[in-house]
Amino acid sequence: MQKEITIKTNKKYEIVDITNEIEDIVKDVKEGNVTIYVPHATAAIIINENYDPNVRSDILNALSKLIPEGIWEHDKIDNNGAAHIKAAILGPSETVPIKNGKLLLGTWQSIALVELDGPRSRKIIVSVR
Amino acid sequence: MQKEITIKTNKKYEIVDITNEIEDIVKDVKEGNVTIYVPHATAAIIINENYDPNVRSDILNALSKLIPEGIWEHDKIDNNGAAHIKAAILGPSETVPIKNGKLLLGTWQSIALVELDGPRSRKIIVSVR
Amino acid sequence: MQKEITIKTNKKYEIVDITNEIEDIVKDVKEGNVTIYVPHATAAIIINENYDPNVRSDILNALSKLIPEGIWEHDKIDNNGAAHIKAAILGPSETVPIKNGKLLLGTWQSIALVELDGPRSRKIIVSVR
Repeated sequence: MQKEITIKTNKKYEIVDITNEIEDIVKDVKEGNVTIYVPHATAAIIINENYDPNVRSDILNALSKLIPEGIWEHDKIDNNGAAHIKAAILGPSETVPIKNGKLLLGTWQSIALVELDGPRSRKIIVSVR
Repeated sequence: MQKEITIKTNKKYEIVDITNEIEDIVKDVKEGNVTIYVPHATAAIIINENYDPNVRSDILNALSKLIPEGIWEHDKIDNNGAAHIKAAILGPSETVPIKNGKLLLGTWQSIALVELDGPRSRKIIVSVR
Repeated sequence: MQKEITIKTNKKYEIVDITNEIEDIVKDVKEGNVTIYVPHATAAIIINENYDPNVRSDILNALSKLIPEGIWEHDKIDNNGAAHIKAAILGPSETVPIKNGKLLLGTWQSIALVELDGPRSRKIIVSVR
C-alpha cells in the first residue's frame, strides 16, 4: 500500500509532527513496516520526542551550530547549501514496525518532517509492506 | 515475521553489538530484508566495525564532541538533551538484506545498539519482510 | 528481488551517483520499496542533489570539518578512524518507494554512494520488496 500526504510548513526551520497522519494510514495493517519518505533534498524525516517542544528546537539549533549557513559553494547558486548538507545527514526516510494497526513507536517517539529551507509545501510518500 | 529482544545496558554511553541476536532471528529466511528498530528516543541503531573496540569509543567520543552535554533547553526538564539530539541524527533503525539465512553484512560490519542515556533496559523490534 | 552491483571509486573521498543503476533494476516493479545497502564500514549511501556538483563537495567538506582526520584511537591500527565515524553517522542504506517502474525521488534527489576511504571497489546490494 502506498499513499501520499502533503504538509505545508510555515518557517525556514521547523519540525512538524506527522505521527497522527501516519497512524491513520496504518490503522488496518495487521503486521508490517511503514516507510515514510520525503522526496525533497532540503527536508528530512526523523523520529524523536515531541512532548517537550524544546527537544525540537534543540535539534534544529544543534544542526545550525554544526552546519552554519552561508559558507558553502552551493550558496552561490541557491543560497541553501546548509539545508542540503543537513538533509543528507538526517536522511529522507524512516521505517517503523506496525502491529495490529498500531505504530510500534516508543512512549517518547514521534515521527516528524524536518523543514530546512521553508516555508514550502512538502510531499511525503507513505509505503506499507 | 516480527520479534522483540531486550538489551540491558550498563553505562551512560555504550555501543552494544547485537549481530548474533539478529542472525539468530533470520537464520531460516531465504531472502528478504530485516529492519532493526529501537523504540526509545535516547538510543539508536548503527552498523559499523566492532572488531577493534576503539571504533566504538571513537564514535561515542566524536558524538560527544559534536553535541556537548548540558547546554540544551530540554536539559531543564530531563537533563538528557544531548542524548535526544544524537539519537535523532543517528536514527532509530537500520535495514539489512538477508540471503539464505545470512545477514549480508560486510566483513567489518556489525549491528549495534547505541545507548546514549543509560544504563537502561532497551527493547528492540526485529521485523523481517 | 535482490541484485548486486559494483562501483569502482577513484578518490579517497567521493560521492558517486548510482541513480541510473538503481532505476534500471526497478524498471519492471509495479509498486514497492527498494533498499540500497553498502556492505562496507567506511562507505555510506545518501540521497541528495547531484545537479550542482558543489553540493557533493560541500557535503564531503562539511563531514571533514565535523570529523577531522588523524585524532582517533582506531587510527593507530588502520589510519581511517574518521571514515568509520562518518559512515556510522550517514548509515549504510537508504530506502526509496517505487511506483510503475519509477523511483519516487524528488526532482533534486539522486541516490549516491559515499566513498570515505578510497579508492576501492565497493559492492552494493539492491533489494526490492
